[in-house]
Amino acid sequence: MDTSFVAREQSRLLGELSGFLSIPSVSALPAHAGDCRRAAEWLRDELAGLGCPVVQIIEGNGHPVVWAESPPVPGRPTLLIYGHYDVQPPDPLDEWISPPFEPTVREGRLYARGAADDKGQVFCLLKAYEATLDATRRPPLNVRFIFEGEEESGGHVIEDLLHAEPERTRADAALVCDMSYYAPGWPAVYTALRGLCYAEITVRTLQRDLHSGTYGGVAPNALETLVRLLARLKDADGEIQVPKLYKAVEPPSKAELKGWKQLPFDKAAYLRDEVTAQVLTGLREYSVFERVWALPTFEIHGIKGGFVGEGAKTVIPAQAMAKVSLRLVPGQSYAKVGKQLERAVASLAPRWADAQVRLLHGGDPVQVDVDHPAFAVLDEAFATVTGRTAVRIRAGGSIPVVPDLGLGGAPVLLTGIGLPDDGLHSPNEKLDLAQLWSGIEIFGRFFEQFAEQGGAASSPPPPA
Amino acid sequence: MDTSFVAREQSRLLGELSGFLSIPSVSALPAHAGDCRRAAEWLRDELAGLGCPVVQIIEGNGHPVVWAESPPVPGRPTLLIYGHYDVQPPDPLDEWISPPFEPTVREGRLYARGAADDKGQVFCLLKAYEATLDATRRPPLNVRFIFEGEEESGGHVIEDLLHAEPERTRADAALVCDMSYYAPGWPAVYTALRGLCYAEITVRTLQRDLHSGTYGGVAPNALETLVRLLARLKDADGEIQVPKLYKAVEPPSKAELKGWKQLPFDKAAYLRDEVTAQVLTGLREYSVFERVWALPTFEIHGIKGGFVGEGAKTVIPAQAMAKVSLRLVPGQSYAKVGKQLERAVASLAPRWADAQVRLLHGGDPVQVDVDHPAFAVLDEAFATVTGRTAVRIRAGGSIPVVPDLGLGGAPVLLTGIGLPDDGLHSPNEKLDLAQLWSGIEIFGRFFEQFAEQGGAASSPPPPA
Repeated sequence: MDTSFVAREQSRLLGELSGFLSIPSVSALPAHAGDCRRAAEWLRDELAGLGCPVVQIIEGNGHPVVWAESPPVPGRPTLLIYGHYDVQPPDPLDEWISPPFEPTVREGRLYARGAADDKGQVFCLLKAYEATLDATRRPPLNVRFIFEGEEESGGHVIEDLLHAEPERTRADAALVCDMSYYAPGWPAVYTALRGLCYAEITVRTLQRDLHSGTYGGVAPNALETLVRLLARLKDADGEIQVPKLYKAVEPPSKAELKGWKQLPFDKAAYLRDEVTAQVLTGLREYSVFERVWALPTFEIHGIKGGFVGEGAKTVIPAQAMAKVSLRLVPGQSYAKVGKQLERAVASLAPRWADAQVRLLHGGDPVQVDVDHPAFAVLDEAFATVTGRTAVRIRAGGSIPVVPDLGLGGAPVLLTGIGLPDDGLHSPNEKLDLAQLWSGIEIFGRFFEQFAEQGGAASSPPPPA
Repeated sequence: MDTSFVAREQSRLLGELSGFLSIPSVSALPAHAGDCRRAAEWLRDELAGLGCPVVQIIEGNGHPVVWAESPPVPGRPTLLIYGHYDVQPPDPLDEWISPPFEPTVREGRLYARGAADDKGQVFCLLKAYEATLDATRRPPLNVRFIFEGEEESGGHVIEDLLHAEPERTRADAALVCDMSYYAPGWPAVYTALRGLCYAEITVRTLQRDLHSGTYGGVAPNALETLVRLLARLKDADGEIQVPKLYKAVEPPSKAELKGWKQLPFDKAAYLRDEVTAQVLTGLREYSVFERVWALPTFEIHGIKGGFVGEGAKTVIPAQAMAKVSLRLVPGQSYAKVGKQLERAVASLAPRWADAQVRLLHGGDPVQVDVDHPAFAVLDEAFATVTGRTAVRIRAGGSIPVVPDLGLGGAPVLLTGIGLPDDGLHSPNEKLDLAQLWSGIEIFGRFFEQFAEQGGAASSPPPPA
């Protein structure tokens, strides 16, 4: 590849990425539906500008998918590249040093919502692709791009599309660049992702809100009832009290556990710089890696009900709602855990309260077989640029579409250029620019090497 | 008094009251400060129209107090009349059948925020006063009106005023009409009010919000920590776990308990029509009256933190806050309970969390000596109009200014024309118009009888 590309084009690239990041494509908030479309259109225009002869915005019941195909390169393998153009809501807004949709560089880092998750990484792949184009704008291999706009909000447009047209996933490998290095200087590929079961638990104890003066002492308070229920769904030692939840959990292999033990890990720094807490919680008898990669979790994300405005409203709330989620690990399934949660809430709630579980969104956990030769090619690219092959780790997060990307039989390469302190889903999300520039070189080299070695035996799939 | 006043003036009165109620004087919300002032000005104009030679809007650090003095009536006693023109926030708005600030009559009931608490009752007293004016607009006794705009929000303007100028409370009796009948047809005077300790409990466990995928399993969740703390501050049986809280509680006298046993009480109807729940909670070994009148309570009014918008934001919140309050009973004090709450939170919160209590607002409980002759006069007025003297009960709610109204030595008559199902602080608050019309006659008679008997021995106080 043209290794001078980044040095030559840096300022243009930074301007382009800032334009992409300045679109507030918050998929969870209906008010930003137009912004999600603008982000999709930005990708469409970019892909057309890169010379893709096929570029489509594919509609569905939600935010659209962007699909593109490179000019065909007969005899070369096909790579399916996935990413997402939507971002998390930026609140709490007042904790951002610079506004979330006004990308700002400070000390070599680009701060913006989506800088690392995932627009910055999508951009990295697009520019790696650009860097490998020849004089006729032909890439070294066949690339299919698929970018969704609902990764952060649990929409189904991409799943619906891939289930209806699984031939889109016929490729020699799928590349998902939505992850991070294990640590600075330690690139990673991921062997598993946790799944997700996101739900709203609603409790009603009264037909109407009451005055705490008049009825305080006898009226069941919906918030209190919900609080008691939530406190019982997970005990103070971190064990989730959903019956049979742990039964299906498949523990990591001995080899995997051994690999994790060899990773550099500074617990004090992790606590201080990443978790930013005074203590680590959770199941003490398991290592930190097991807790965040190989065990289910239960988290409370928000509680609504009663009055949280200024002043002193003395209401006994009739209804209260908690947004909660469980992370799932290999062996578990979203469908099963959703039912287990419903049963647990029904059994823990008092009989005199109306307690309901509404499953909002979820995905199954994923395990990836990393023995495919594509992983060796990726390792080589990482080693050339960073001096180190990628470590095999897991991710605690979830990318619900990953199983569907593998429908066509391609191995899914889960990797990325983020760093652990990027602040995904938090205020002041950032991307280190050095990671972006080296990432362009890494993936450019990967495209070229994979073009040579990756799919020697396969013919390009028919057009979708 | 002119007993044809109500029949003759009903439609004018309804129009006037609707005008007063249509002002959204929500004292807790800064955006409504101008509306609070408009409500104060409405009262000023009304009092001037009633012929009061002294009418003042008295400024302080908050919403103003309205003060007025009737034309002096030498040789007659002086009555201090208290009420408040501010109202509770109207949310949840979507549960109102007609909008909270568009007063609407349905089936003989006037629906509006403030209809019963307290604008409708203030209006009742003003119109009773009007009904007793002679041809020269002179009342049968000396009346001082004092109306505040911070009863619902915990401001101190009226307390500051009365502490600075206690001579304003020199009167033969103080009348507070902010209460309700015990039941339809059962007028009441109140022998005690509960006090209040309103606080925000804030918990911080992290320096920043985290992604539940990446850190779920090890990062302490501020909402979970707060939920566990709240669940421990009161146990499932309703006992508040604030050390020494119950120690100071003075139990009701045997005579009081005996009186309460004689009150008509239909528990099934109370549960169904008033509490609107399937069960009564709280300390089972005490009667319902003891639980709502003579025991402290702990209620959660709202919980803030994390994400409660649409969709599935998977945040581990760094900080969470609960709005809570305790109701206090005779023997307890706001200052002492505030400190007890602070100590309890400090001892129940885990050491690794930063837990803070911010006391927002409070008031001491009140006990009233109902042996003063003024109570007999009020009884007579009730008996004449309703056929029944007022029962002696307590109130679970709080009116923080009441102790200060008695600074000048006047007995405080706590009574009112509301009904238990008026829905104070709830959607669809209402006032039965029959209660308003009979209330005007009751208080008109009380003014006239008290003018004759109530203060025979006293001379009018010097002008304030």
